[in-house]
Amino acid sequence: MSDLILRDATIADLPAILAMLAEETIPPGREAGPDDPRYMAAYEAIEIDPNQRLIAAELNGRVVGTMQLSFLPGLSFKGSWRGLIEAVRIVRDLRGQRLGERMILWAVEQCRVRDCKLVQLTSSASRTDAHRFYARLGFVQSHVGMKLHLRD
Amino acid sequence: MSDLILRDATIADLPAILAMLAEETIPPGREAGPDDPRYMAAYEAIEIDPNQRLIAAELNGRVVGTMQLSFLPGLSFKGSWRGLIEAVRIVRDLRGQRLGERMILWAVEQCRVRDCKLVQLTSSASRTDAHRFYARLGFVQSHVGMKLHLRD
Repeated sequence: MSDLILRDATIADLPAILAMLAEETIPPGREAGPDDPRYMAAYEAIEIDPNQRLIAAELNGRVVGTMQLSFLPGLSFKGSWRGLIEAVRIVRDLRGQRLGERMILWAVEQCRVRDCKLVQLTSSASRTDAHRFYARLGFVQSHVGMKLHLRD
Repeated sequence: MSDLILRDATIADLPAILAMLAEETIPPGREAGPDDPRYMAAYEAIEIDPNQRLIAAELNGRVVGTMQLSFLPGLSFKGSWRGLIEAVRIVRDLRGQRLGERMILWAVEQCRVRDCKLVQLTSSASRTDAHRFYARLGFVQSHVGMKLHLRD
């Protein structure tokens, strides 16, 4: 894994990222085909926003992981920024090799660079292995995560 | 409560909002005095960002509640936006009067206006009354919320 590169994604990375996002979704089949124009609109919305970063993890020229980082201003904690990690994915054939650890530690470092007071994320309640993974990296399961779906 | 007004906060609302945020914090005493310049910097960061809204709930000319809404672009769910609700507070003497319900239902409506696919929030694991409150409004406790504090 010494050649792992973590960087902002480009349009050229989008097919690989969308393929990872379409795997093992909850619920299954929630994504559209990669040519759906809504993905390009979303990519552009992320791209133009200085507080949003879509990340590609590249290994030997192949995009093998992705995540989205959001930097959120707020009044709490003496006016602190907070980092939010969403949509973490790793290609199936490279799981269990601590790639995720490298990605999350790098993400935390990016949040430090942006002077965030804290980093937060939510993880599906059923994914207890993911909870243990994040706990090993120092995350504390202090909250419940609640979602309200507005449409299909 | 018929005169409740929900609107974007202005600088004039900041002292009342900061007073609410400083009450009952976890951990206690985590906030600074309202004149700390970091609060004004945070207010300005929210103010200039079209995807951030600091909300004031006003009743008979008094600011009685606050929350922050964030609108997040993302690739998941066919490139959907999601709404994030943070820092919900109501003044102590007006709790238990369904003011919070009015605020959250309004927040959800704002997320619909922005075409969000879902609304998400985290709530301290210890606040089971808050979990029941959000569940009554349709939120599902599908996730765990994990936080990593980077500094004091």
